[in-house]
Amino acid sequence: MLDFGIIQGRGFRNVVEDGRVTGFQFQLRNPNYRGVAASLLDGVEVVVDGERIPDHVPLWTLQGRTLTLDELRASTDVRWQLDEPATITVPRPGGLSVGVHDLEVVVQLRRSYFPPLISRTPFTVVGKGVIVPPVPAGELQYCVSTYSYTGDIYTTMTLEDVFADIADLGATGIEILGEGNVPNYPRPEPAWVDTWHGLLQQYGLTATNFGSWVDTTRWHDRDLTAAEGAEQLQLDLRLAKQLGFTSVRPKFGVTSWDLDPHPIWEEAVQRSLDLAAELDVVICPEIHAPTPIKHPVTQGYVDFIEKTGTEHFKLLIDTGIFQTSPVLENAEELGTDDEDDIPPPLRALAVPMADLAEVLPHTHFIQAKFFAIDDDLHDLHVPWGDIVPTLEKAGWNGWLSSEYEGRRDPYRGRDQVRRQHALLRSLQTGTR
Amino acid sequence: MLDFGIIQGRGFRNVVEDGRVTGFQFQLRNPNYRGVAASLLDGVEVVVDGERIPDHVPLWTLQGRTLTLDELRASTDVRWQLDEPATITVPRPGGLSVGVHDLEVVVQLRRSYFPPLISRTPFTVVGKGVIVPPVPAGELQYCVSTYSYTGDIYTTMTLEDVFADIADLGATGIEILGEGNVPNYPRPEPAWVDTWHGLLQQYGLTATNFGSWVDTTRWHDRDLTAAEGAEQLQLDLRLAKQLGFTSVRPKFGVTSWDLDPHPIWEEAVQRSLDLAAELDVVICPEIHAPTPIKHPVTQGYVDFIEKTGTEHFKLLIDTGIFQTSPVLENAEELGTDDEDDIPPPLRALAVPMADLAEVLPHTHFIQAKFFAIDDDLHDLHVPWGDIVPTLEKAGWNGWLSSEYEGRRDPYRGRDQVRRQHALLRSLQTGTR
Repeated sequence: MLDFGIIQGRGFRNVVEDGRVTGFQFQLRNPNYRGVAASLLDGVEVVVDGERIPDHVPLWTLQGRTLTLDELRASTDVRWQLDEPATITVPRPGGLSVGVHDLEVVVQLRRSYFPPLISRTPFTVVGKGVIVPPVPAGELQYCVSTYSYTGDIYTTMTLEDVFADIADLGATGIEILGEGNVPNYPRPEPAWVDTWHGLLQQYGLTATNFGSWVDTTRWHDRDLTAAEGAEQLQLDLRLAKQLGFTSVRPKFGVTSWDLDPHPIWEEAVQRSLDLAAELDVVICPEIHAPTPIKHPVTQGYVDFIEKTGTEHFKLLIDTGIFQTSPVLENAEELGTDDEDDIPPPLRALAVPMADLAEVLPHTHFIQAKFFAIDDDLHDLHVPWGDIVPTLEKAGWNGWLSSEYEGRRDPYRGRDQVRRQHALLRSLQTGTR
Repeated sequence: MLDFGIIQGRGFRNVVEDGRVTGFQFQLRNPNYRGVAASLLDGVEVVVDGERIPDHVPLWTLQGRTLTLDELRASTDVRWQLDEPATITVPRPGGLSVGVHDLEVVVQLRRSYFPPLISRTPFTVVGKGVIVPPVPAGELQYCVSTYSYTGDIYTTMTLEDVFADIADLGATGIEILGEGNVPNYPRPEPAWVDTWHGLLQQYGLTATNFGSWVDTTRWHDRDLTAAEGAEQLQLDLRLAKQLGFTSVRPKFGVTSWDLDPHPIWEEAVQRSLDLAAELDVVICPEIHAPTPIKHPVTQGYVDFIEKTGTEHFKLLIDTGIFQTSPVLENAEELGTDDEDDIPPPLRALAVPMADLAEVLPHTHFIQAKFFAIDDDLHDLHVPWGDIVPTLEKAGWNGWLSSEYEGRRDPYRGRDQVRRQHALLRSLQTGTR
């Protein structure tokens, strides 16, 4: 699907020719209600961060052909279809800096059915775009979780749009929610499984972590048994393997405000370890606020790893535990805007970096949870400036997977993920 | 695609059993970020127009099975997937009245991974739904133009969603914009043509009118010739026929504020009449504000019909000519909110009904242009209370095709079309 906004989120990037950045480009959907012959296009003026580029300067790419304004006017067999974006390329040595840019775009179109004096019609659109730099050399691997696109998936995004968004920002991993993104879960059609593998290949993405749930309150009148928990976990291990994933995060039900997992967790995991080893899929319990690293729950998982000596049970860290300020935006949804009234799960835990460094050897995967990154690429809650160096210093080489959890306005998560990748990559050594 | 709003636009209807209206129903997309086993659902409270229906009363339809709350709780093999809406059926003898209704819906879900005291989580959503009555007995036929969904198509709606929306509100005709809704226009892939015919059959819709443009300013340095105009028109006639349409509306470029068509129109049409007859497709020039019926342009078309004696050139009336008040909302976009400053094309023409009655024998198709219908089903600009009786009195039996042209907020056109059909059908004799 195309973005509703005329300036598309995907496709905003610097243009590199012969190793030099020669300009930038972005994509527009047709602002008119119909497609048109390209000869009716009469230029596009671009104002980027206040700098005006005259309407005869940008190049247009339509249907795979790149044309100047004069070439457009003379063209006889090129069209701007309603369902195909145009790529606008603006020559500008050095391109644009990493981060968020303001765009104002005026598309000029000759509309024959308007009276002559007004038939050259301007369509003015404004928006922002995010330039994401390439992934720097180093050990960190960049991924995006479909959780970031909650609300957008199946409404403004198809599954293929998810792949396209992730590939467009230069990440190479995709994390999904099993009971969310697998149609007909837990028994996807074979054709869908083929489509899934085709998309991985087409967009050059690696399937990373598969979100799973062990719903201990699944029955309203009794708790789930350990055998039932193991059955659920094993179902997801097999499905994850079938789809090419290398880890499964089972989210067990909890029994306390501290998120103590339901006691069946240990037996359910124990009974599944042989299968995990056979499939070579790592089971990853999630360390999530309000449970810090120095806590009996986390310690219980570490003890389990050491006791069993397994290579197929490791930690998954949700970066919400490092928050230095609470997310009042979400707290408001809960009916309060007083920081003291914020329920413990939303308070800022501010887990120290030393604790992270200590468990990194046991850590398989990191969900890069975040809520809001502003136009200056400042994260308002999560201290990436501490986290990224800690990971680099430890030589940690796992996946950092974007998990946007802020406001669920349409398209917001997609834009925020771009900002997060721009920020994280800028923080890697030697890039700033 | 599903609507971004949790309460879906499609599917809001009264339920008829054994000839009696026993309740109403609507569709919800899953408000959570993951799909769930249906046993985790813990009821849905519905407040309709202020009347509260307790959460154990509504029935749920999931994956084709309809269940009570107790049956949901006990279910072992039903799920509410993220990509499948649930249908909620509320028992209520007599159902709901035709028109717009306020809905507040609270879905209760047990979330095992929340601390026990808050794990039964309410998801509260509010919205409006439109009950559209069946098409009354009579000559009028109901259609929707894809123009109504401008901005939504290819962003929040696929072509199949267009079909589904139209069929859901009980209309039986679909009007499209050739240079808008035919991918790869003017040469659609054969597979797409098959898909098109498959959708017509699947949703029980008739292809009615095909929008065409003869862009007289297509070349920036000279006018289109009559031969080129005829070529464009004939291309569209053939394509329309291939897709099953029975009329083509060519929008010729204009030469004046009165929308006088470019003089090539007559020769271009003349040269295409034989083909139109051979294909049995009617060419329909559009009578559109600011050109009224009593005007040389319209008279020129009528003269052409009488002179040629053709059966394949007839009028298409855009109901914007009957407007009794201007559309200030659109005028604001033009930078003015002073009625006197409104450009002529947007002023209210208020063409009298007698003029409509006079040309109805020459009228093949009516584009039911409108801009805003409020919660009480009052159209703020177009006098349907005069138009519908005029059509009925004349026994006019063509298509009335919704052409929403108001604000292009996402989903707004879709909701407005439902309102228009509710209004128009209510105005037919004997239904009010």
